[in-house]
Amino acid sequence: MYVIAVYDVGQKRVGKMLKLCRRYLNWIQNSVFEGEISEVRLMELKHEALEIMDEEDDSLIIFQTRQEKWLEKEIVGKEKQNLDNFL
Amino acid sequence: MYVIAVYDVGQKRVGKMLKLCRRYLNWIQNSVFEGEISEVRLMELKHEALEIMDEEDDSLIIFQTRQEKWLEKEIVGKEKQNLDNFL
Repeated sequence: MYVIAVYDVGQKRVGKMLKLCRRYLNWIQNSVFEGEISEVRLMELKHEALEIMDEEDDSLIIFQTRQEKWLEKEIVGKEKQNLDNFL
Repeated sequence: MYVIAVYDVGQKRVGKMLKLCRRYLNWIQNSVFEGEISEVRLMELKHEALEIMDEEDDSLIIFQTRQEKWLEKEIVGKEKQNLDNFL
């Protein structure tokens, strides 16, 4: 399946979440990731995210679609994705 | 069509972008919005966003899908949407 993941976590946990999400998905912008992922890997990602997150304050939103072609992406303004290699 | 919009703008422009996006879509989390929108309204949103944004630094990502049912949303952790009425 194809997913978009967006996290909103406290400043202290941003680094860990960024690292975690980049292990599973492609970084697009700030706290936004996308990519093809299996159900099992997605479960792992959520499980690991919950270990990092403060469930009272933090959240992770996951949009899933069965086919990437059902989702069209457009970036208005600066495209940040190319920076991914430097982080 | 159904869209998810995520912005990443400089601190000074956050307030304006939040206000703008909330006029067109429903706020889900931080800088993430979703909702049903016509093509014309989406063009208006992008046009107005570009007036606020610094195109060198800021970006707005829009994911479009023709049918909301093609997209499944899951929120892990804290669901912030309920705060929307208070902002």
